[in-house]
Amino acid sequence: MVNLKGRDLLSIADLNKEEIREILNLAASLKRGEKQYKCDKTLGLLFYKASTRTRVSFTVAMYQLGGNVIYLEPGTTQIGRGEPIEDTARVLSRYLDILAIRTFAQEDLQTFADYSDIPIINALTDLEHPCQILADFQTIEENFGKLEGITIAFLGDGNNVAHSLLLGGAIMGMNVRVATPPGYAPKAEIVEKARKLAANPEQIIITHSPEEAVDKAQVLYTDVWVSMGQEGEAAKKIPSFQPYQLNERLVSLADKEAIVLHCLPAYRGKEITAEVLEGRQSRVWDEAENRMHAQKALMACLLGLT
Amino acid sequence: MVNLKGRDLLSIADLNKEEIREILNLAASLKRGEKQYKCDKTLGLLFYKASTRTRVSFTVAMYQLGGNVIYLEPGTTQIGRGEPIEDTARVLSRYLDILAIRTFAQEDLQTFADYSDIPIINALTDLEHPCQILADFQTIEENFGKLEGITIAFLGDGNNVAHSLLLGGAIMGMNVRVATPPGYAPKAEIVEKARKLAANPEQIIITHSPEEAVDKAQVLYTDVWVSMGQEGEAAKKIPSFQPYQLNERLVSLADKEAIVLHCLPAYRGKEITAEVLEGRQSRVWDEAENRMHAQKALMACLLGLT
Amino acid sequence: MVNLKGRDLLSIADLNKEEIREILNLAASLKRGEKQYKCDKTLGLLFYKASTRTRVSFTVAMYQLGGNVIYLEPGTTQIGRGEPIEDTARVLSRYLDILAIRTFAQEDLQTFADYSDIPIINALTDLEHPCQILADFQTIEENFGKLEGITIAFLGDGNNVAHSLLLGGAIMGMNVRVATPPGYAPKAEIVEKARKLAANPEQIIITHSPEEAVDKAQVLYTDVWVSMGQEGEAAKKIPSFQPYQLNERLVSLADKEAIVLHCLPAYRGKEITAEVLEGRQSRVWDEAENRMHAQKALMACLLGLT
Repeated sequence: MVNLKGRDLLSIADLNKEEIREILNLAASLKRGEKQYKCDKTLGLLFYKASTRTRVSFTVAMYQLGGNVIYLEPGTTQIGRGEPIEDTARVLSRYLDILAIRTFAQEDLQTFADYSDIPIINALTDLEHPCQILADFQTIEENFGKLEGITIAFLGDGNNVAHSLLLGGAIMGMNVRVATPPGYAPKAEIVEKARKLAANPEQIIITHSPEEAVDKAQVLYTDVWVSMGQEGEAAKKIPSFQPYQLNERLVSLADKEAIVLHCLPAYRGKEITAEVLEGRQSRVWDEAENRMHAQKALMACLLGLT
Repeated sequence: MVNLKGRDLLSIADLNKEEIREILNLAASLKRGEKQYKCDKTLGLLFYKASTRTRVSFTVAMYQLGGNVIYLEPGTTQIGRGEPIEDTARVLSRYLDILAIRTFAQEDLQTFADYSDIPIINALTDLEHPCQILADFQTIEENFGKLEGITIAFLGDGNNVAHSLLLGGAIMGMNVRVATPPGYAPKAEIVEKARKLAANPEQIIITHSPEEAVDKAQVLYTDVWVSMGQEGEAAKKIPSFQPYQLNERLVSLADKEAIVLHCLPAYRGKEITAEVLEGRQSRVWDEAENRMHAQKALMACLLGLT
Repeated sequence: MVNLKGRDLLSIADLNKEEIREILNLAASLKRGEKQYKCDKTLGLLFYKASTRTRVSFTVAMYQLGGNVIYLEPGTTQIGRGEPIEDTARVLSRYLDILAIRTFAQEDLQTFADYSDIPIINALTDLEHPCQILADFQTIEENFGKLEGITIAFLGDGNNVAHSLLLGGAIMGMNVRVATPPGYAPKAEIVEKARKLAANPEQIIITHSPEEAVDKAQVLYTDVWVSMGQEGEAAKKIPSFQPYQLNERLVSLADKEAIVLHCLPAYRGKEITAEVLEGRQSRVWDEAENRMHAQKALMACLLGLT
């Protein structure tokens, strides 16, 4: 029997296969309107970096669970004035029931968790993006009825989204291929961990060849090339990313029924073409919607509402 | 039978006389506490330009309908980073139940509506301010028991408030006179549309004479001369607006029982004198309160709660 | 019978002993979960100066009362554009049920109260911090079972927290000693008022000697030396404050069972040492939590929910 009450979600690898399965089943059930919860809990959203999609999807998810939300925007006072995370964490955990944090360093998130008595959720760090991956998995299941054995190809920068895909995909028995330009491969320790988590280490492929990655894949995935705050790197970065653009040529190499995912915002003509983003195989709007359902299921589990 | 469920309100002219009547009746009923709704919907407030009154009145209105609110302040991330409105609209309409937008260009509002599956409300654009006009109409009815045949004189800049007054007044059978300095007349296409909507085109008068406008009018209305973001224009603009100041001399030319409206914030000594703003005939605080009731009624209709 | 419905809390001295007692008893009862309220009121938080602790504790307190919150952050529009407080107050009191304000000048807070029909709460001014003091009193009672006869020593800057402690302590029959560097004593009129409110004026001691203040005291209290917005003064201020640092030497002079309070954020090595802040006698995290319970009790009383 899975019981996630009181747990944190800092990395997708904090969950095992059975626990991810539980969350995904509940997310699907909530989306179909089969389950309803009516709690009176308060979610804190502590964002060191702004984000519309993450913020709105978490907020509405908690509202639909019957609870309330307080959004602590970037630059929120004392926190920005050098109060140690230990103190902020202890105080906030006296007020709130659950806290989702968007920050830079995974270690800061860990410190929050160490000093809090409430569930802490990773709402994006430089290292991982587990909530996005839960939504992606929900979207994949909606289309293929399963995760196990599905091949997903990620093209672009081997950072947080790629990391969580590698770990989560390994846990769920998927084949995960990540194609990046030289110099942008996922962190070696994440790749190693994914290979250990996988039933078969060959499920995990890291390559510089986009063609190798997308070959007969069922899920094609990309992300912005230049994240917020990295605009200065754009000029240098973009030329080497050009071959990894998700366009009709690469889509044609994948499975005929492959679906296209993107965690948004999308830059047409950069990491994805307008044709692919708006095309028949795109599931990006469903994927965005599923952020809400997956996070709702996650919070229901961590709060022990289920 | 009026059914506004799922409709947008981009222009006051999106509503016909019967529909405006329905909203106003419900607003009055809500204000008297005769009706109560208990929904669990989420309102998004997407403001490209900040506004206390609009924000607080919408927020409390939705709270009183039992629902929740998420305020997306100016500078909210992805939206400000050049994500196309089409994408923002599609994503937000997956999360929210209704969305009120304060922006600059009416076309941007239209694009939001085109790409959203949820009701979109104009919470102020450069072209129109329909929610303000609903509150104004409610205030006028509280004082005169009707709208039909009432003469309203607007003094000042022929922009969004004047436009919505012209269209809404025409629809409701009012006489609308707008007096502006040369160069600040309402848009010709709005005036033309108002004349077409009016039973008799002579109900609509556009003039440069404040005395002509206020002559025996029952409602005197003014607005700030220099809107937010236009402070640079102030020095040039103010001298030509001076004759349009709503002061005791102009009030004395109106109907003895005329009421004074102002959509606030008010600049005493500029567009209105302190005496008139605080005087016996001022209804500006009731008018501000009615923003909440009118918007509550509007949202109840668009959400199909009625 | 105490009835606080509709009252304001601008100064802790707006309440008498019986009224403070009522709020503290309710706060303790709410903390133990013995009482529950389910209102549908809206709290406004109008902050001219940001504050995480005050904001989150008020917000969650209102959520737990069943109500809603709207946070009007520093720089909120019209208010910052020179609209007179009289106008803002009249408009907001048409929408909201209760309003907590964090501002600079006590006179501005008074003007809000004069022009509002709803309860106004001082959520910090330069002169007073009554909500903090209610939480402090709750914390002291949790440890000593009473307030009467308890000796509290405040070390540091004789400003808002010290002022409210002096007045509140006097009302509740406590001995209040405030030790500040020369030039930072509490305002003379506050000290005089505290002496009048005290059963015995000798309950109030103002000194420059930290040793005299802490001698056998049961409560040791300090606050940041350099408040937000005063960073420029830091270089000048800090040397003269050094002898008032709450460290193990000063703690050893107090009662053996003395407790340590701090309204946070704390600067280790400045006004308090890490050892004392994290030590056996520290109650700062309980004190922070009690902000929520005390403010919840306060709002329940002012809204007439009790």
